[in-house]
Amino acid sequence: MQLLKDRIRKDGKIKEGNVLKVDSFLNHQMDVKLFKEIGKEFKKRFADCEINKIVTIEASGIGIACVVAECFDVPVVFAKKNKTKNIAGDVYTSRVESFTHGRIYDIIVAKEFLGKDDKVLLIDDFLANGKALEGLAELIEKAGAELVGAGIVIEKGFQRGGDEIRKKGIRLESLAIIESMDEKTKTIIFRDDD
Amino acid sequence: MQLLKDRIRKDGKIKEGNVLKVDSFLNHQMDVKLFKEIGKEFKKRFADCEINKIVTIEASGIGIACVVAECFDVPVVFAKKNKTKNIAGDVYTSRVESFTHGRIYDIIVAKEFLGKDDKVLLIDDFLANGKALEGLAELIEKAGAELVGAGIVIEKGFQRGGDEIRKKGIRLESLAIIESMDEKTKTIIFRDDD
Repeated sequence: MQLLKDRIRKDGKIKEGNVLKVDSFLNHQMDVKLFKEIGKEFKKRFADCEINKIVTIEASGIGIACVVAECFDVPVVFAKKNKTKNIAGDVYTSRVESFTHGRIYDIIVAKEFLGKDDKVLLIDDFLANGKALEGLAELIEKAGAELVGAGIVIEKGFQRGGDEIRKKGIRLESLAIIESMDEKTKTIIFRDDD
Repeated sequence: MQLLKDRIRKDGKIKEGNVLKVDSFLNHQMDVKLFKEIGKEFKKRFADCEINKIVTIEASGIGIACVVAECFDVPVVFAKKNKTKNIAGDVYTSRVESFTHGRIYDIIVAKEFLGKDDKVLLIDDFLANGKALEGLAELIEKAGAELVGAGIVIEKGFQRGGDEIRKKGIRLESLAIIESMDEKTKTIIFRDDD
């Protein structure tokens, strides 16, 4: 998605350790106009699919998921990272290792909001080692729902997550796949760069 | 907002300890069509105001804030609850006591995304003891930004938060104010009930 790649090149900041900061428009400050264009693009890419629910994970996936969901005219369910006392009753859980936070946590979805009638599109802002997406896919499977595919805004193509997800036969659409970044020259090379 | 009150009466679940579960449409599963109507209502109520940024707090406020932001045509900034290694540099912080989670945490906004040119509308899903909203208002003040007002989806009118916020002179628009709930009879009384 050229608009997104242009925006990443313009406003993304490359930090040491292959960290890409896009918090001026994607995951801290959020440009909802861009999100709407992202939604339209996902809608185009999954035009051949029946989708009746979007699932994401807190926190930074929620905003994108909601705007994307408007384009699909479906509700969103977000997996929670901690069990609070407001989630009573039965839940599906799976375990995720976070690259960003350097810790392991459980993700949780209430059983009443995910079931065998759901045809799910997973949406998230980033895909790096793929652990969050794998955890979400596991929740879908446990719920007996159908995983239609996954839509990712930015995939770090130099990490293993994307390839592993594809190897599992999950349809993955990443709108910008970063092949490499150079902190010193401030350059980003995207896969299939135009 | 009658549509919202009707939905709360239809799908809200009253639990012991004055807990209202609205996780089937508001804060776990999210009805983005309802969010759009909520956005239009806030836009109407704050029609006389100049607003160029919406600020909320993770996690459940983010979805509503993003859909509302589309109605205002402004970006969203969400305050984070924990400092991650992806937030480097200068941040504004304030301390919040959580009713839901029974703990104290810091909320954080990067200084580059909140400043003296910002005319801010705060958006959140719930207002109970008001601590989250107070923390957000404190961040706005520290940043030298202008706090135009706060838009809340559901206010628990029987808790102190709303009154304290209003006492501070903050313009507060709550779309549904619950005066009382009865777990046994499953009834909800709204303030200014039609």
